Amino acid sequence: MDPQSHSQSPPPAAEDDPDAMPREQQQREEAPPGYVPPMSPEEVAAVEALLGYEFKDKSLVGEALTHGSFYLPYRSGDSTYERLEYLGDGVLTCLVSREVFLTYPDLPPGPLTRLRAANVDKEKLARVAVDHGINRFLRHKAPKLEEQIADFVKELGQYEYHSNGLLDAPKVLSDIVESLIGAIYVDSKYNQEQVWQVFRNLADPLISLETLGKHPVSELLEFGQKTGRIVDISKDGWVKDTKVDVFVDGVLVASATYAQKKEIASNRAAKAALDKLKEMSGQSDVQSAPAEAPEPLDELDHYGALELQ
Amino acid sequence: MDPQSHSQSPPPAAEDDPDAMPREQQQREEAPPGYVPPMSPEEVAAVEALLGYEFKDKSLVGEALTHGSFYLPYRSGDSTYERLEYLGDGVLTCLVSREVFLTYPDLPPGPLTRLRAANVDKEKLARVAVDHGINRFLRHKAPKLEEQIADFVKELGQYEYHSNGLLDAPKVLSDIVESLIGAIYVDSKYNQEQVWQVFRNLADPLISLETLGKHPVSELLEFGQKTGRIVDISKDGWVKDTKVDVFVDGVLVASATYAQKKEIASNRAAKAALDKLKEMSGQSDVQSAPAEAPEPLDELDHYGALELQ
Repeated sequence: MDPQSHSQSPPPAAEDDPDAMPREQQQREEAPPGYVPPMSPEEVAAVEALLGYEFKDKSLVGEALTHGSFYLPYRSGDSTYERLEYLGDGVLTCLVSREVFLTYPDLPPGPLTRLRAANVDKEKLARVAVDHGINRFLRHKAPKLEEQIADFVKELGQYEYHSNGLLDAPKVLSDIVESLIGAIYVDSKYNQEQVWQVFRNLADPLISLETLGKHPVSELLEFGQKTGRIVDISKDGWVKDTKVDVFVDGVLVASATYAQKKEIASNRAAKAALDKLKEMSGQSDVQSAPAEAPEPLDELDHYGALELQ
Repeated sequence: MDPQSHSQSPPPAAEDDPDAMPREQQQREEAPPGYVPPMSPEEVAAVEALLGYEFKDKSLVGEALTHGSFYLPYRSGDSTYERLEYLGDGVLTCLVSREVFLTYPDLPPGPLTRLRAANVDKEKLARVAVDHGINRFLRHKAPKLEEQIADFVKELGQYEYHSNGLLDAPKVLSDIVESLIGAIYVDSKYNQEQVWQVFRNLADPLISLETLGKHPVSELLEFGQKTGRIVDISKDGWVKDTKVDVFVDGVLVASATYAQKKEIASNRAAKAALDKLKEMSGQSDVQSAPAEAPEPLDELDHYGALELQ
């Protein structure tokens, strides 16, 4: 994707002069501060179509999809998606709060907060980006990002709604969903209902009490409490080989490694331990997260503290 | 304050029967789930006057000002301010995000986020409650809350805008500002402009880049980096005597105790150390937070990570 090639007023070419700056750089040098290289009208239209929203100010689309690496070298003041992402995070927090508040008129504040967090969450929003192909329009020059996105897309299918901490979603994917939401908020003159209409469609189905699922570390600790066993999620091996071990009553039950983040390794080790314990006990004393939670409020209370960390 | 005495339909008195429940309790037993004991019309009008907002549904005022301790014993389903507080937090996050976004059109996301956090902050909102006397209308039966509020009010005057972590604001005070904001959001049929008008007046002046100030722990660590000294904020004494010590190049410079929270003790110890270092150096190498920040962006970058913890 090279949006530069579509820019509306290219500076005069200087191909004869060997010392001349590349056209792209020269164009940027001449631009006022805060200038965002435009996206092509075709690309803008494609983004509008997938959002179901037509922008009055088309430059907001380009800004919302521009990663810092797109400018090489990055200069202080270059416009990236980050300011719109900040604003989008704010408006989503409000609108998801309201949706959950209205959907569950008797739900206490603890589960309300967890449902909000699950829906304005890095993995949930990264799924939204992938489901709708928003990532195809991200403007960047960081090859590593494409690798991370590809890895995430590959693993995504294993989890219907949310991995509950087993996947490491690339932040850039949730960022551009939030920045596009922020862009719509600005473009619509801060019309929260228009923002909600777009997000509601993109994020369907929202994570509900029934699909919230359990965090594996919390579920494992809960299992320990219920059955009187000593559960130890040991990170001693982390420094040497990025490994996390789970011991139950002193016996090594499962391990997991994940080089990038200790938390993901812990979650995966806890999940592996739970799977093993379930297999061993024939499901007798370890409950999996049920598809239909019979008593969702009681269950939520057990794993709230950890989930929000 | 005894709103029960103003309730509109008192049950028949049963004063002759020594085994009879107190009237308040009996009234509650007979009420449907989710019932909120009403506030008197005089009290509702006083709250409306200080908010500058007239409620269509007056019961929201009572709900927004009812602490769980008001019900003794508390039964699952009793209505407290917590659901409205959750909603108010969501809408404030959005509206303060927008205000900061519009006020500082060139500010990077880091400082934007810190300004938002400073204005939707426990101490800032607790100040709003005290400044407008909202706490006088809180309905509770926890004498300890009054003590905590009184202590906070006593110390508040020492800091013009914000103590940056030196004061331990009672959460209940920020909670009822958020719950009243949530109540207005519901009552106005989710009209964010009406909510903003009320909050903008209550919270004036909002914390700005100029008044954001520095977090003492961050400032102390920054001082260490700048001057090549080894700063150690030691919490070893915490268990024994709730004391935090600050060592600079191995020399004890200052200590502070605060029985309730280690974090507040650390902040106070860091502040005491900074004051001492400034005195010793005649201000030569330790900079206080200036009233007019000459280069606010650069300065903010140094202490962002800690401030948001």
